[in-house]
Amino acid sequence: MTHAVVLGAGSWGTAFAKVLADAGREVVIWARRPDVAELINKTRTNSDYLPDLRLPPTVRATADPAEAISGADLVVLAVPSQTLRGNLADWAGHLEPDSTLVSLMKGIELGTTKRMSEVIVETAGVAADRVVVVTGPNLAPEIADGQIAATVVACTDMDRATLVQSSISTSYLRPYTNDDVIGCELGGAVKNVIALAAGIAAGMGLGDNTRATLITRGLAETARLGVALGADPLTFAGLAGMGDLVATCTSPLSRNRTFGAHLGRGETLEQAQRATRQTAEGVKSCLAIRDLSRAHGVEMPITEQVERICHEGADPRAAMAALMSRKPRPE
Amino acid sequence: MTHAVVLGAGSWGTAFAKVLADAGREVVIWARRPDVAELINKTRTNSDYLPDLRLPPTVRATADPAEAISGADLVVLAVPSQTLRGNLADWAGHLEPDSTLVSLMKGIELGTTKRMSEVIVETAGVAADRVVVVTGPNLAPEIADGQIAATVVACTDMDRATLVQSSISTSYLRPYTNDDVIGCELGGAVKNVIALAAGIAAGMGLGDNTRATLITRGLAETARLGVALGADPLTFAGLAGMGDLVATCTSPLSRNRTFGAHLGRGETLEQAQRATRQTAEGVKSCLAIRDLSRAHGVEMPITEQVERICHEGADPRAAMAALMSRKPRPE
Repeated sequence: MTHAVVLGAGSWGTAFAKVLADAGREVVIWARRPDVAELINKTRTNSDYLPDLRLPPTVRATADPAEAISGADLVVLAVPSQTLRGNLADWAGHLEPDSTLVSLMKGIELGTTKRMSEVIVETAGVAADRVVVVTGPNLAPEIADGQIAATVVACTDMDRATLVQSSISTSYLRPYTNDDVIGCELGGAVKNVIALAAGIAAGMGLGDNTRATLITRGLAETARLGVALGADPLTFAGLAGMGDLVATCTSPLSRNRTFGAHLGRGETLEQAQRATRQTAEGVKSCLAIRDLSRAHGVEMPITEQVERICHEGADPRAAMAALMSRKPRPE
Repeated sequence: MTHAVVLGAGSWGTAFAKVLADAGREVVIWARRPDVAELINKTRTNSDYLPDLRLPPTVRATADPAEAISGADLVVLAVPSQTLRGNLADWAGHLEPDSTLVSLMKGIELGTTKRMSEVIVETAGVAADRVVVVTGPNLAPEIADGQIAATVVACTDMDRATLVQSSISTSYLRPYTNDDVIGCELGGAVKNVIALAAGIAAGMGLGDNTRATLITRGLAETARLGVALGADPLTFAGLAGMGDLVATCTSPLSRNRTFGAHLGRGETLEQAQRATRQTAEGVKSCLAIRDLSRAHGVEMPITEQVERICHEGADPRAAMAALMSRKPRPE
């Protein structure tokens, strides 16, 4: 019997390991830090990320990637987006032939402006139809808590999507298949940037009308970029587009939204990083997405302003005023 | 110099009177209750609805509809949806020729399943191109507070839409014109039903992933109905569709969401009415929207379940479980 491996012991990786175990799979979590792996094996908890979660006994952890990956038919990648290429270069030699690679990552690579599935194909030397993207309105603490949710399993090979679908179907998580990998990945990546904008607005004291307007226009600019890159526009009206965006922009559990709120209250990037003890994914991705939009001649005014606030020291008040006074294209 | 009249002194009518005044119009508010009209004239406040709002001196109130409507070039209708027909039958004789009728109402008439603009055309005997619909992510307390927001001004006659646009453009409210009256009205009406569902889910203790999923599928069923009735599907991706829906489903200021939360905690319709001292708009509209969807052969599973919970005593837990386990159409 083969096992599933989750590479990365952050909050979504850990919650996803629980989902796989609850769906009947044997699971190995690879943690970068040996003490985290040891703690998971000893206490069945990952207290840094999901202190309330107790992992099932069919989940074990290791800090040795070779041991984790060897024999796995399902390889789930859940590392920070900007470290994927380096990590995967080390790991590729251990992959079993025809294993399925699942990406949980929601970012765009800096410099190359590549989507995570593109980085996987390139770095692991696998065919694109071996890569599956799982994305949707899936705040990790709620999934870990067994709350009802739906998610999207995207792959150009529908058989492989169906295989992953059955590996993560549980009483509380319903996965739906989709063949639009580009649209699903873009929805996941850009939503972090829009969530920063929503957080910035909230931090400035702006209300729910403004937030709803930012979410609506944010999805419109995501879809514009997606269509330019070959995505199906309808993907953005679904769970991987609108669903994930709404969850991330409205939940207090969202790290990007929380990070944005610090910026909106007038803190610098460094102060926000110190206060939240991390850098939100969207802070890096906004640079890559801004580059991608310019390369394809797509207007993304919210992304532009978030990038200016995060990386060019722009005043959030002026940036938000510029956004709200902008004449939108006909809807 | 003619004036604008706002017929109805509820929270949105009162906030809208402030917007008109801030945009430079003389405004008369008609209040059903003489004591409310008197209070507005004496204290410049409408303490029942928006206690923190101080109306500008260019707003005055009366309980006499003939006095309010005579001489008005802009007639804003802001009464409860189900009373519109009766009210307007009394008022129609006072309307100036070629005055513009603006609907702020978000409902569908019980029995006839007509949109508010259809009821206006029929009851006032005016041409459809004299009726303008204003709708969008516009929680009244935030507009009253002068927080930045955008809204949609819909009319089949673009000149008239532009006229209303300039009558409500202020530093804090940006109106955008749209010619899809059907889509804008449906977005406004169905969102109250979806907000009830979001409230029910929250009252049951379900989290932000579930809410985002309900919002996403709720917009999909709204758009399906809209398209069947002749609306432009793109309207639902804009401020009058997604924008208004997101604001209403995620804000603690939403009355429909608050009402739903009472139902989700296991209260009966009567208990929820007592606790909130009113019936939320969506409670009535869900019946009319359910009828409309069945008449056009459109599946609206969320609306169906809300109607069952509100009017057939269905158990919210069973209804919500039925919704979340339902296989959606391809996205």
